Amino acid sequence: MRSEAELEGVTLLGNNKTQYKTTYSPEVLEKFPNKHPGNDYMVTFNCPEFTSLCPKTGQPDFAEIKINYIPDQYLVESKSLKLYMFSFRNHGDFHEDCVNIIMKDLVKLLNPKYIEVEGIFMPRGGISLYPFANYGKPGTEFEAIAKTRLFAAIDRRK
Amino acid sequence: MRSEAELEGVTLLGNNKTQYKTTYSPEVLEKFPNKHPGNDYMVTFNCPEFTSLCPKTGQPDFAEIKINYIPDQYLVESKSLKLYMFSFRNHGDFHEDCVNIIMKDLVKLLNPKYIEVEGIFMPRGGISLYPFANYGKPGTEFEAIAKTRLFAAIDRRK
Amino acid sequence: MRSEAELEGVTLLGNNKTQYKTTYSPEVLEKFPNKHPGNDYMVTFNCPEFTSLCPKTGQPDFAEIKINYIPDQYLVESKSLKLYMFSFRNHGDFHEDCVNIIMKDLVKLLNPKYIEVEGIFMPRGGISLYPFANYGKPGTEFEAIAKTRLFAAIDRRK
Amino acid sequence: MRSEAELEGVTLLGNNKTQYKTTYSPEVLEKFPNKHPGNDYMVTFNCPEFTSLCPKTGQPDFAEIKINYIPDQYLVESKSLKLYMFSFRNHGDFHEDCVNIIMKDLVKLLNPKYIEVEGIFMPRGGISLYPFANYGKPGTEFEAIAKTRLFAAIDRRK
Amino acid sequence: MRSEAELEGVTLLGNNKTQYKTTYSPEVLEKFPNKHPGNDYMVTFNCPEFTSLCPKTGQPDFAEIKINYIPDQYLVESKSLKLYMFSFRNHGDFHEDCVNIIMKDLVKLLNPKYIEVEGIFMPRGGISLYPFANYGKPGTEFEAIAKTRLFAAIDRRK
Amino acid sequence: MRSEAELEGVTLLGNNKTQYKTTYSPEVLEKFPNKHPGNDYMVTFNCPEFTSLCPKTGQPDFAEIKINYIPDQYLVESKSLKLYMFSFRNHGDFHEDCVNIIMKDLVKLLNPKYIEVEGIFMPRGGISLYPFANYGKPGTEFEAIAKTRLFAAIDRRK
Amino acid sequence: MRSEAELEGVTLLGNNKTQYKTTYSPEVLEKFPNKHPGNDYMVTFNCPEFTSLCPKTGQPDFAEIKINYIPDQYLVESKSLKLYMFSFRNHGDFHEDCVNIIMKDLVKLLNPKYIEVEGIFMPRGGISLYPFANYGKPGTEFEAIAKTRLFAAIDRRK
Amino acid sequence: MRSEAELEGVTLLGNNKTQYKTTYSPEVLEKFPNKHPGNDYMVTFNCPEFTSLCPKTGQPDFAEIKINYIPDQYLVESKSLKLYMFSFRNHGDFHEDCVNIIMKDLVKLLNPKYIEVEGIFMPRGGISLYPFANYGKPGTEFEAIAKTRLFAAIDRRK
Amino acid sequence: MRSEAELEGVTLLGNNKTQYKTTYSPEVLEKFPNKHPGNDYMVTFNCPEFTSLCPKTGQPDFAEIKINYIPDQYLVESKSLKLYMFSFRNHGDFHEDCVNIIMKDLVKLLNPKYIEVEGIFMPRGGISLYPFANYGKPGTEFEAIAKTRLFAAIDRRK
Amino acid sequence: MRSEAELEGVTLLGNNKTQYKTTYSPEVLEKFPNKHPGNDYMVTFNCPEFTSLCPKTGQPDFAEIKINYIPDQYLVESKSLKLYMFSFRNHGDFHEDCVNIIMKDLVKLLNPKYIEVEGIFMPRGGISLYPFANYGKPGTEFEAIAKTRLFAAIDRRK
Ligand SMILES: [Ca+2]
Ligand SMILES: [Ca+2]
Ligand SMILES: [Ca+2]
Ligand SMILES: [Ca+2]
Ligand SMILES: [Ca+2]
Ligand SMILES: [Ca+2]
Ligand SMILES: [Ca+2]
Ligand SMILES: [Ca+2]
Ligand SMILES: [Ca+2]
Ligand SMILES: [Ca+2]
Ligand SMILES: [Ca+2]
Ligand SMILES: [Ca+2]
Ligand SMILES: [Ca+2]
Ligand SMILES: [Ca+2]
Ligand SMILES: [Ca+2]
Ligand SMILES: [Ca+2]
Repeated sequence: MRSEAELEGVTLLGNNKTQYKTTYSPEVLEKFPNKHPGNDYMVTFNCPEFTSLCPKTGQPDFAEIKINYIPDQYLVESKSLKLYMFSFRNHGDFHEDCVNIIMKDLVKLLNPKYIEVEGIFMPRGGISLYPFANYGKPGTEFEAIAKTRLFAAIDRRK
Repeated sequence: MRSEAELEGVTLLGNNKTQYKTTYSPEVLEKFPNKHPGNDYMVTFNCPEFTSLCPKTGQPDFAEIKINYIPDQYLVESKSLKLYMFSFRNHGDFHEDCVNIIMKDLVKLLNPKYIEVEGIFMPRGGISLYPFANYGKPGTEFEAIAKTRLFAAIDRRK
Repeated sequence: MRSEAELEGVTLLGNNKTQYKTTYSPEVLEKFPNKHPGNDYMVTFNCPEFTSLCPKTGQPDFAEIKINYIPDQYLVESKSLKLYMFSFRNHGDFHEDCVNIIMKDLVKLLNPKYIEVEGIFMPRGGISLYPFANYGKPGTEFEAIAKTRLFAAIDRRK
Repeated sequence: MRSEAELEGVTLLGNNKTQYKTTYSPEVLEKFPNKHPGNDYMVTFNCPEFTSLCPKTGQPDFAEIKINYIPDQYLVESKSLKLYMFSFRNHGDFHEDCVNIIMKDLVKLLNPKYIEVEGIFMPRGGISLYPFANYGKPGTEFEAIAKTRLFAAIDRRK
Repeated sequence: MRSEAELEGVTLLGNNKTQYKTTYSPEVLEKFPNKHPGNDYMVTFNCPEFTSLCPKTGQPDFAEIKINYIPDQYLVESKSLKLYMFSFRNHGDFHEDCVNIIMKDLVKLLNPKYIEVEGIFMPRGGISLYPFANYGKPGTEFEAIAKTRLFAAIDRRK
Repeated sequence: MRSEAELEGVTLLGNNKTQYKTTYSPEVLEKFPNKHPGNDYMVTFNCPEFTSLCPKTGQPDFAEIKINYIPDQYLVESKSLKLYMFSFRNHGDFHEDCVNIIMKDLVKLLNPKYIEVEGIFMPRGGISLYPFANYGKPGTEFEAIAKTRLFAAIDRRK
Repeated sequence: MRSEAELEGVTLLGNNKTQYKTTYSPEVLEKFPNKHPGNDYMVTFNCPEFTSLCPKTGQPDFAEIKINYIPDQYLVESKSLKLYMFSFRNHGDFHEDCVNIIMKDLVKLLNPKYIEVEGIFMPRGGISLYPFANYGKPGTEFEAIAKTRLFAAIDRRK
Repeated sequence: MRSEAELEGVTLLGNNKTQYKTTYSPEVLEKFPNKHPGNDYMVTFNCPEFTSLCPKTGQPDFAEIKINYIPDQYLVESKSLKLYMFSFRNHGDFHEDCVNIIMKDLVKLLNPKYIEVEGIFMPRGGISLYPFANYGKPGTEFEAIAKTRLFAAIDRRK
Repeated sequence: MRSEAELEGVTLLGNNKTQYKTTYSPEVLEKFPNKHPGNDYMVTFNCPEFTSLCPKTGQPDFAEIKINYIPDQYLVESKSLKLYMFSFRNHGDFHEDCVNIIMKDLVKLLNPKYIEVEGIFMPRGGISLYPFANYGKPGTEFEAIAKTRLFAAIDRRK
Repeated sequence: MRSEAELEGVTLLGNNKTQYKTTYSPEVLEKFPNKHPGNDYMVTFNCPEFTSLCPKTGQPDFAEIKINYIPDQYLVESKSLKLYMFSFRNHGDFHEDCVNIIMKDLVKLLNPKYIEVEGIFMPRGGISLYPFANYGKPGTEFEAIAKTRLFAAIDRRK
C-alpha cells in the first residue's frame, strides 16, 4: 500500500469540493510517482463519456476516448484525468485536433516512454471519424514502435 | 480551436444549400490543412451508407466503405467526403473498381503518406465480395508497409 | 413442387430483362396463390438494402425494412418485392411516411390477414428513427392483435 | 434407460448402411414411444444444414430449419429426421412451401399436440425470407395457442 | 411525398442558422401533421448522445435516451428533437427527473395516444440507473396498456 | 446468516471426502429449509457440464442443463445438485428422457410449487435437440402456468 | 432542477467522509421524495460489484445484483444503495438468502408499489445459481403482477 | 465504368439461361481483366452456401468457404464463382481435399500473385474441421508471405 | 475423390461397431495419406466435448480442445480423433498435463511439420485455466515459429 | 496421471480446512513440478473475481485479472492461486500497483521463463483503468519478447 509520501500531489481523489470545469483546462491534470520503474508496463484508460463542440457549427460531438501509455517516472491520477476530459465540454475543435491535443497534454505532464490516444466519435451525416495519434520518446525503442502502432487501432475494430 | 484562416477551403460544413449529386463527382471533395505535421497519425472513416449500380445489369449494390489514412499536409473534410460517397448513387462499376477509384481520388486530393480503402459489399447470389486497396507514398517507409497491410482487412473480419 | 399453372403471374423470377426502376413503382409487385390456405402461417422478409431521399433536403436515407405477414389467398413474389423496394431510390418522403406507404401497398396487393412493416433507419444528427406500422383484416381476430403488436418491434430491439 | 422393446421401430440409429436420399422422402421418418405422457413437454430441433432448389430457376437454396413440438404418443427419432431433411437436396419448391410440407409430414407421423416449423433462408437479391408455420391439435387448448404463436418467431429474431 | 403545406411548421430541418441551446429549452420542439391517422403506428427514437449534470455535485452525466410513441394528430420533427435533447447539456437534475420531464414535454407537444421514455445512464460508483416512464391517453385503451408496459424495458435488457 | 440448525441436512458442502458417482444416483440430492416462505421466488441453476451416453450406441453426449424452480418448504443444496448431475456420466438415455428424469427427481425431493428443466444438447449429425419439461403443483395456480411455460425456452433462444 | 428542500435527507451524495462498511448495514440506505407521483414509472439499478461470503465455508462469492422498482412516495438515493451493497462484503449467507434480504430491506425503506431483485452469481463447482425475488404492494394491482413476474428474469437470460 | 470490351469473357452475369451443375465443374469459372495493375490489392469472397458429400459414407457436408487473393492480370467473375461452388453439390471428398482443390483451380484460372482458401465445415461427431490452404506466386515476395499466412485463419477465429 | 487405396487405414469411418473407450487410448488414432504435399497447409480441429477427471479429487473437468497442425505425409482421420478424445473420460490428470499429452500423441502419430493444442477448461473456484502447447519439426522453419506461436492463443481470446 | 510424489507440495487441493485470508498473503501460493520441460508452453489463468480497496478512500474496487506464463521448473497450483487472489480483499492499493505486485509474487514463486498480468478494473467516475505488466527471464529470448508484448493486451480488447 502507498504511504502518504507516495501519494503527495494527489489532491483531487476523495476531495468533496470537486470543480467540474467546462472549458479546456489542461492544468487540472495531476501525476504521482511510478513505484515500478524496474519493469516497463502499459496503463490503459477507457473514457466513454467525452463530449466537445464542432468548431464551425457549435453542434455537440460525442466520443469514446482510449488512452494507452508506458510510464517513465510518473502516472496520471485517474480522477484528474476525468476532470480534464470533462473540460472539453464547451471546447470547439475538429475530431482530429482533439485527439492530438489530448496526446500532447499527457506527453507534457508525464514525459512517458510511449503513449497513444484514439477517439471513437459518434457518426455525423452517416459517417464515423476515428482519429488515432501516438508518440514514442525520442532516443528510446518506442520511437520506432510508434510508427508501427499507427495501424493498431484499425485492426482491433471489427 | 481553429481560426477562420485555418478553416479556409471548408465551404460545405454548416452550409444549407447542400447539393446531393448522384453521378460520380470527385470534384466535391474538399481539404483543410493538417495542424499536427510533427507527428504521424491515423484518421479513420466508416461509411456504412454507400450504394452504386452493377455495371452490367444496373441492379443497385450496397456496401460499407472503410477508409484509413495518414495525412501529410492535408485532411479531407468529412461533409465533402459524405457528398463524394453519395455521388456513386447512379454510377455503375464492379466492386473492385469502386474501391480502387475511391482510393485514387483521395490520393489525388490529399497526397497522403498512406491510405487504404475497403468495401464490405452486401451478398449477391449467396456470395459476399470485399475488395481492399491501399497506397504508401513512394520514397517513404509507408511504401513497404502498404504491401504488408494487404492482409490486414482479412484478419480483422471474423 | 409447383406446377406451371401454380406459377402463373410470376413473370420476373429468372427473367433476364430485369428493369430496375428508381421512382416509386407499386405496379412492379407480383403475387402467386397460397397453396396452404388450411393453416394460417407467417411470412417474414428482411430487406437491409432500402434507400430513399429526405423530402426536404434531398439527402439520401438508408434503412433495413422488415415485413411480416399472414397470407390469405396470395403470397408476394420475392423478386418483385426487391424491385419494388429499389423503386424508392429517388423517392423523397419522411421515414414515417415510407413505412406506412409500403404497408398500404402490400395490403392492396395481397389483402392479407395480417401485416406489419418496420423501418430501421440509419441515424441522422445523432438520433435514429424506427417507424412500425401494422394492419389486421377487419372482421378477423387479427384486427385486435394488430393493436397489441404495436409494441412488438420495440421489445425485440436491445 | 430404455429397454430394447422401448426402442422398437428405431432402425437407423447406429446402423452403418445409411442411405442418403436426395429426393423428397417422407417415408424415411421413424418414431418411438413417448415414456412421459403424464406431463406435456416441448422438444426442439435445430437443423442448420438444410438445402433445396428454386422451383423455377433450379438454383440451390440454403436454410436453417427450426422445429418445436409437444409430443403425444410418439417422438421422432433424430437420425431419421436428419435423413428426411437431407432428402430435400434435389427437391424444388418455394421457401413457403418447404416449411409447410415439413410441418405437415411431421403432423402425419407423430400426431403431436402442437408443432411449429421455421425456415431461416439465406438472402437472395438482398432480401431474406423466413416462413413460419404451426399446428395445434383440434379439440385441445393448443389449437388456440397455435394462432398466438404465429408471432413468436418474429419476436425472437433481433 | 409531402407538399409544402404538409411541411408547414417544420422550420429547423435544412436550416443553416441552427442555434444549439445548452439550457433546458422545451420551446425548440416542433411538430408536423400525421398523414396516416387511419391506422395506429409506433414511432421510435434512439438518442445515444444525451448529457446532463448531477443536481448536487455538478458532475456531467451521460445516457442513451429511448423514446417510443403512437401519434395522434402530430409527429415530432426529428431535428427539433435533437436540439431539445442537446438543451439538457447544462441542466442539473436526477436521472429519474430527466426522464419524466422529457416524457411530459412530449405529451404536451404531441398529445399522443401513447408514449414511453427510457434513460440508460452510464454507471456511477459501480451502479447503473435506468429510469422508464410512460403515458397512455386517458379514455383510450392505451391508458391500461401503459401500466403493463412498465415492465417492458426491464425485459429487453439482457 | 443461517444458524447451524438452519443448515441441518447439508452434509456435502465443505466436506473433503466427496465421492463422484458416475452411475445415475438420485439419492445424493440434499435439501435445506426455505427461510422465505412468505414470498414466492424463483431459483435458477445453470449447469453447462452435463454428460451422458447414447442408449443405443454408447457415444457420449454433452449438454447444458438449465433448471428453474419456485420452492415451497425446501431448497436443493447446490453441491449435491452438482454430484447428482455428474452421476449421469455413465448413464445411457435419450435426451428427452434425461430431461424428464431430472425434473421428476427434483419434484420428488423438493415438492416445489413450480419447476422447469431444459437441456441444450450438442449437435449430432448436423441437428441439435433441446428438450424442455416442466411441472406446476396440482391445486396451485402454477399448474396452469406450466402449460403456458412450455413455449418459454423456445423464445429465449435466438 | 431540485430545490434544497427536495434534497433533504440526501446526506451521502457529494460527501467526502464516506465510510465503507463491510458488515451488513441496512441503516445506510437513504431516500428522497418522488416528484412524479402522478404517473407510475420504473427505476432500474444494475450493481455488478456485489460480493459476500459462503455461510458454511467462508469462501467469497461474487454476483451482479439487478433491482427494478416502481416508487410510491420515495426513491432510494443511489450512493446510499452503493454503500448498502458494499456492506455485504463480510456477510455470510446463501445466494437465495442474500437476494431476499435485499428485497425486504428496500421494501421497508421505500414502501414501493412494486420491487424485484435478481442475483447473477458466478459459478461454483460448474454450476451457476441465480435467485429472483419480488413484491407487489398488497391491495394494488402489483400484488397479482408480482406472481407473473417470477418468470421474467428467466426469459431475458439467453 | 467498364466498356463492353472490358467486360469481354463475362458471359454468365445477367444471363437468364443459367445452368446449375451439381458435379465438380471447374470449367464454369470465368475471368475478366484487372484494370488496376499498378497497385496490388486484395479481393475477398465469403461463400457460406457450400455443400459436398463425404467420400466414404455419402453424407452431405456443409461449409462456409472463404477466399482471399491478390490479382495479377485477371479477376474471377463472381457469378461464375457461385456456379463453380454449387458444382461440388454431388462431389464426394474429404474437407482437406475440397479446400486444396478449390485453391488449385483458382490458381490455374487466375495465376494470381497470392491466394488463400479456408473451409469452415459444420461439426461431425462433436468435432469441427477447418482446413486452410494458400499459395504465393514463385519468384514474388508472396511466396514467403504464404508460409507466414498459414497461421492467419487460426488467429482470427475466436 | 479419393480411391479406395487412398483410404487404406481408415477403418472407423462409416463403421457401425464403434467402441467408445473411456480410459486413455492413444492406439485408436488413425491416419491417411496427405494428397497435397506440394503446398503446406493448416488443418484445424475444434473439439468442444472433452471431459477428464481431476487427478487428486476425481471431480470431472470439462474443456474445449483446439488443435491446429500442418501435415507432412499424413492426416489424422477425424472419427478416430473423436474416439481418442472420448478416451480421456475416466482419465485423471492436471489440465496442463492433458494438453501436453494430446500434443505428443499426435506428433507421434503424424510426425507433422507443426502442431499446437489448446485447452479451454471450465472454471473451478472462480478461476479458468487454459494451457497451450506446440511443436515445430526440428530442422524446419517451424521450429522457430513454434516459439513465437506460444502467445497466439492468448491474443485471440477476448 | 501424476504419482503421489509428483503431487508433493500440493496441500490445499481437496483439503476441507481451507482458510480464506483477506489481507495480502503471498505465502499461500503453492507450486508443483513441470512434467513437460522439453517443450515450452503457455499457461493461462482467468480470474474474474478479484476485489481490493482504494488506497486513499477505502472504496472497494473490482477487476478481472488475467495471467499468462511460460513455466520453467514449476507450475502454480490453481487452488492456491485462488486463495492468493482472495487475500487482496482488504488490501488497499492503486490498480497499477496491484497488477505489478501480483506479477512480482509469481516471478518469485515460479521463476518462470515469461509471465504477464493484466487487470480489467470496473469503471470509476466514467473511466476504466486496465494495467498490464510483464517479465521475461534475463538471458532468455523472452526478455526481448516481453517488450513487444506490452501492446498485446491493448489489441485484443475491442
Ligand atoms: Ca476501437
Ligand atoms: Ca446497412
Ligand atoms: Ca471488415
Ligand atoms: Ca428491430
Ligand atoms: Ca449456414
Ligand atoms: Ca430465428
Ligand atoms: Ca456513448
Ligand atoms: Ca460500464
Ligand atoms: Ca435497454
Ligand atoms: Ca460446453
Ligand atoms: Ca436456451
Ligand atoms: Ca464481474
Ligand atoms: Ca439476467
Ligand atoms: Ca472462422
Ligand atoms: Ca480461445
Ligand atoms: Ca481484455
